[in-house]
Amino acid sequence: MTTYKITMAYDGTNYHGFARQPHLATIQGTVERALLKMSKGLPVEVVGSGRTDAGVHALGQVISFNYPGNISADKMVKALNSLMPLDILFKQATIVPADFNARFDTVSKIYEYRVSLDYYTDPFDRLYTGHYSYSIDLDLIKIALQDVVGVHDFTSFEASGGVIKDKVREIYQAEVVPLSDKHQIIFLFHGNGFLYNMVRIMVAVLLEIGSGRRAVHDFRRLYQVKDRQQARWTAPASGLYLKQVFYDN
Amino acid sequence: MTTYKITMAYDGTNYHGFARQPHLATIQGTVERALLKMSKGLPVEVVGSGRTDAGVHALGQVISFNYPGNISADKMVKALNSLMPLDILFKQATIVPADFNARFDTVSKIYEYRVSLDYYTDPFDRLYTGHYSYSIDLDLIKIALQDVVGVHDFTSFEASGGVIKDKVREIYQAEVVPLSDKHQIIFLFHGNGFLYNMVRIMVAVLLEIGSGRRAVHDFRRLYQVKDRQQARWTAPASGLYLKQVFYDN
Repeated sequence: MTTYKITMAYDGTNYHGFARQPHLATIQGTVERALLKMSKGLPVEVVGSGRTDAGVHALGQVISFNYPGNISADKMVKALNSLMPLDILFKQATIVPADFNARFDTVSKIYEYRVSLDYYTDPFDRLYTGHYSYSIDLDLIKIALQDVVGVHDFTSFEASGGVIKDKVREIYQAEVVPLSDKHQIIFLFHGNGFLYNMVRIMVAVLLEIGSGRRAVHDFRRLYQVKDRQQARWTAPASGLYLKQVFYDN
Repeated sequence: MTTYKITMAYDGTNYHGFARQPHLATIQGTVERALLKMSKGLPVEVVGSGRTDAGVHALGQVISFNYPGNISADKMVKALNSLMPLDILFKQATIVPADFNARFDTVSKIYEYRVSLDYYTDPFDRLYTGHYSYSIDLDLIKIALQDVVGVHDFTSFEASGGVIKDKVREIYQAEVVPLSDKHQIIFLFHGNGFLYNMVRIMVAVLLEIGSGRRAVHDFRRLYQVKDRQQARWTAPASGLYLKQVFYDN
């Protein structure tokens, strides 16, 4: 038995999210089916650093699993890629101690959210950005992002369906960057954990701040009221990317 | 009756090409169905500057049609966009003389072809590039591109299925540009006309020249032999973009 930790990218468009579901195409299910082929029928359970929703993408998702065999990390990457559809790509593997768990050993994560600001979305970006057609003031968003950094109770920013009781998370870094060649902006959030739909709800609030629909310091109020209804809408899955997952050493 | 000339972009992934086909999703069919709705049932025939194959994209396809009504060019763009799926976008319309024909009045066209050179294709580029995993020498390709420019008989570069007798075309410009942020190259071809699959066959030959599988001046030989078999493979549709179509005035 060998334990592998693997970094992977996927275009989430055609999947019902990361988590295995009967009769639906999922990332976990697709990987587990490939491993079942490689192991000649011995089931292998894949653990992801976290779930991603339907349509959400990954640039650097991390998974771990125990494999009933002993092949090199590079060969594991090659074998898995040869069994994957083209919208899933394994990038790098390492062999890790048997007690490593990609979910529970996660220290922090970076999520990216891409927003297209054109009146109409470019057809080539429709699956890879969220769309917001109101004009925005980036400086207002940058001021609001200062309220995001730090330790906060994010109850207002969790969609129903979340099961974790503790709603306090620390955000180390929150940035927005305009693209030079396209009418798009990219948000980056680095934090020790994220509640269900938290990034997508935060982005929606930030865009409303940018377009003048909300007060610039509305985050401070939303932390206090702990009411998801007041955060209103959720930015679409298509703009969200799990970019990087950090572990100790 | 008003005649419109409209520039449009589309992601060709989910279409069986430009040309209308019964029971299949096509660009022409989708646009004609929208116009039929707008005209309250009077059929409108859409003319494209040329057909694009299944999976081929457009950044600047041009269409024309006679519409039984008289709305401004801007309103026509808005009305059509409101009826289109998100993978088709109308960019700009002008009202033109009734004898304008987007196909027969075409003076020249620019095609672009994007090639991903990574060992594995990035999942996010799989539908938007051709893939070539051999290492290439860009200088060899640049030398070969000098043989592409000019007036040549392109018989060797036409897939079966082409119906036009005259195989002589003039290429005004043929370039290759490496992308700075990705391991990709982009070909650009500006010419007065292109035979069926001509760009995709030329790109395949150019990549084989770049990887040392063909002599650098093999184009000169292929013009002489007039034999499509000797040009061998065809680069995939996913990398091809109809970028711009030129008309007089």
